[in-house]
Amino acid sequence: MTDTRDNLQLNAGRLWDSIMDMAKIGPGVAGGNNRQTLTDADGEGRTLFQTWCEAAGLTVGVDQMGTMYARRDGTDSSLLPVCAGSHLDTQPTGGKYDGVLGVLAALEIVRTLNDLGIRTRRPIEIINWTNEEGTRFAPPMLASGVYAGVHDLEWAYDREDGDGAKFGDELMRVGWKGDEAVGARKMHAFFELHIEQGPILEAETTDIGVVTHGQGLSWTEVTLVGKESHTGSTPMPMRRNAGLGMARILEEVDRIAWSHAPYAVGAAGHVEVFPNSRNVIPGRVVFTVDFRSPDRAAIEDMESRLRSDGEAIAQDLGLEISFEKVGGFDPVTFDPDCVAAVRVAAERLGYSHRDLVSGAGHDACWVNKVVPSAMVMCPCVDGLSHNEAEEIDPAWAEAGANVLLHAVLDTAGVVT
Amino acid sequence: MTDTRDNLQLNAGRLWDSIMDMAKIGPGVAGGNNRQTLTDADGEGRTLFQTWCEAAGLTVGVDQMGTMYARRDGTDSSLLPVCAGSHLDTQPTGGKYDGVLGVLAALEIVRTLNDLGIRTRRPIEIINWTNEEGTRFAPPMLASGVYAGVHDLEWAYDREDGDGAKFGDELMRVGWKGDEAVGARKMHAFFELHIEQGPILEAETTDIGVVTHGQGLSWTEVTLVGKESHTGSTPMPMRRNAGLGMARILEEVDRIAWSHAPYAVGAAGHVEVFPNSRNVIPGRVVFTVDFRSPDRAAIEDMESRLRSDGEAIAQDLGLEISFEKVGGFDPVTFDPDCVAAVRVAAERLGYSHRDLVSGAGHDACWVNKVVPSAMVMCPCVDGLSHNEAEEIDPAWAEAGANVLLHAVLDTAGVVT
Repeated sequence: MTDTRDNLQLNAGRLWDSIMDMAKIGPGVAGGNNRQTLTDADGEGRTLFQTWCEAAGLTVGVDQMGTMYARRDGTDSSLLPVCAGSHLDTQPTGGKYDGVLGVLAALEIVRTLNDLGIRTRRPIEIINWTNEEGTRFAPPMLASGVYAGVHDLEWAYDREDGDGAKFGDELMRVGWKGDEAVGARKMHAFFELHIEQGPILEAETTDIGVVTHGQGLSWTEVTLVGKESHTGSTPMPMRRNAGLGMARILEEVDRIAWSHAPYAVGAAGHVEVFPNSRNVIPGRVVFTVDFRSPDRAAIEDMESRLRSDGEAIAQDLGLEISFEKVGGFDPVTFDPDCVAAVRVAAERLGYSHRDLVSGAGHDACWVNKVVPSAMVMCPCVDGLSHNEAEEIDPAWAEAGANVLLHAVLDTAGVVT
Repeated sequence: MTDTRDNLQLNAGRLWDSIMDMAKIGPGVAGGNNRQTLTDADGEGRTLFQTWCEAAGLTVGVDQMGTMYARRDGTDSSLLPVCAGSHLDTQPTGGKYDGVLGVLAALEIVRTLNDLGIRTRRPIEIINWTNEEGTRFAPPMLASGVYAGVHDLEWAYDREDGDGAKFGDELMRVGWKGDEAVGARKMHAFFELHIEQGPILEAETTDIGVVTHGQGLSWTEVTLVGKESHTGSTPMPMRRNAGLGMARILEEVDRIAWSHAPYAVGAAGHVEVFPNSRNVIPGRVVFTVDFRSPDRAAIEDMESRLRSDGEAIAQDLGLEISFEKVGGFDPVTFDPDCVAAVRVAAERLGYSHRDLVSGAGHDACWVNKVVPSAMVMCPCVDGLSHNEAEEIDPAWAEAGANVLLHAVLDTAGVVT
């Protein structure tokens, strides 16, 4: 027997139009957006979102971190809500979809349910988390981190931007410091739809990524000290070339990451060579190794091998080496029931799908610490994100939003 | 039978005092010197040198590049002079000995000959070449290059410093643009004493380097283009990591240089990684490979292997690669008779010595194109040069200057 809900789909055209309307606020210089958190543009975007929510009959609450919760009541007010959302803030040269898709797809769910007169047992809440990007106020995922108890509220208020303005003051200035205690609003489950920000789905022409894990991260800053000397007058056996040490370690980083295939990754994006002159053998090199894996043991093994292999390489070349862990977070295992709800939704709708590990951090990664959570991903062109040229096909957004719809509905319970 | 000249030595204390007096002009910030070419300090240094030369009874001429020639007549005015010298200009954070030792040791030869009433058949000329360092006006060895016909005079005049001032105008401003046509002053031989600027002599506790060759140089700028992508969300097989390509090529550069042991060297001192962010896989890397060897065929082989190995590495990693030769000069083979004169002088004086290849460029490398030339080297502490901490032992300077004295005297012919 086919459930009447099996064919339920939301209004993809309306969703797309809303994304384009939101993109008019805080336009970038190259077709994308610059709507950084707690700027006037962010305030304007929030107001537009609030207007849309209220037009859809939702009740909007705001917590002390400025996070917005737009609620559609369920038939059983004693039950915790099923939540969906993401963030409306962008990178300084950001795209139109990163975060925005997840918030507006959640809004479209409610609009569709309203259109069709569908009621759910549990309430549904749409969330716009404050300062996911972290480019104006580091770190990223600030409000969801406070919600999950990772950060303290006062510590978050004290974060400063490049001009010395504090997060707490700017939150007040733009008028979005709410009354609700952060974390007071309990949830039954949280779902986040997001563009992949990576190349896998598009390359495999797969509609949906069922996100089972978030990669853990380890950043190790490596400093090699050799001896600055003349590239001409220093014979090979008398060199202590910090640049050569870096080269050997980077090759080793690659080997280490491959040894934990298929999910682990490793590379150095940041390299500084001193004095960086064509005729001086590098006396000092500083670089940061980025290792990621959904498996904590794999990360620990990679870190440990970086240190032992690095020390052997340095010793072989007569270099001093030191390591500093400059960043990291644990891998995330999303809630099996929420993940299953996403997978079932994709199956039911006939979309091609595959399990995916999120390589980037997302609000759901923090929220999952205190609320059963999962993520849905859709492709983005060329894996490009954090870039004004970020692009998606409307059909990709539609598929992702429909999966979000069904996962939320299944979890909230449709009243028949 | 022992020649009376066998025990002839110059006044090492007077030489050292002169070096220290010259170092008072254009002092650096850390015990060295900043007496860059054609600055007021350079002008002051030239005037002091001229005063000393005239006090020693020498006739000072200046050519259109500002190069100074201080002449002591020989007994046969029909013969070409034996010349010795180097340069008085310094790096912006230079040492007290680089160049200065070679000019003032030549002056001390004349002072000693005057003291002892020794006449030579050939004239002796002491030379201060303009702008050897090339830090204010690139390229280095500018005046000796014009003398040797490597550069055109007008081209040299048009060289600009960082503030847009032209070499020709500054030469006029400091008052050292002479009347003599560059190259008009012919020479029988040219000898240059210089600190090694490398670590070999000190490490082997050898007094004297008999410089048989100057290394040829090849600078190749390598550009690798991959794809900027997120270090977290890009699986290993989908990466096009330009940083990894650089690492593999740098390792190959090392192998290639070792394959031409013991004289060839290779390294990259200059590396730029783009966008150089901790969580972005390098999409572009630019670095300059410095290969040197006294053997032209070795340089050509190293250049060729860099290109073929680089292309194979790039192809393997899905990178684009391009090469641009951004600098180079041919190896120098110094004049066998002049080299022999240096070796014989070291033997006669009982100094330990070894043949040496000059890793750096020197005025003698250009002059050798048109005048039979050779170089004498003495150790410097820790191989350090182009640094205010550059240091030598007075005994090292004494040995080098005595070898210069005997090589010049043997070539000029003592009148007994």
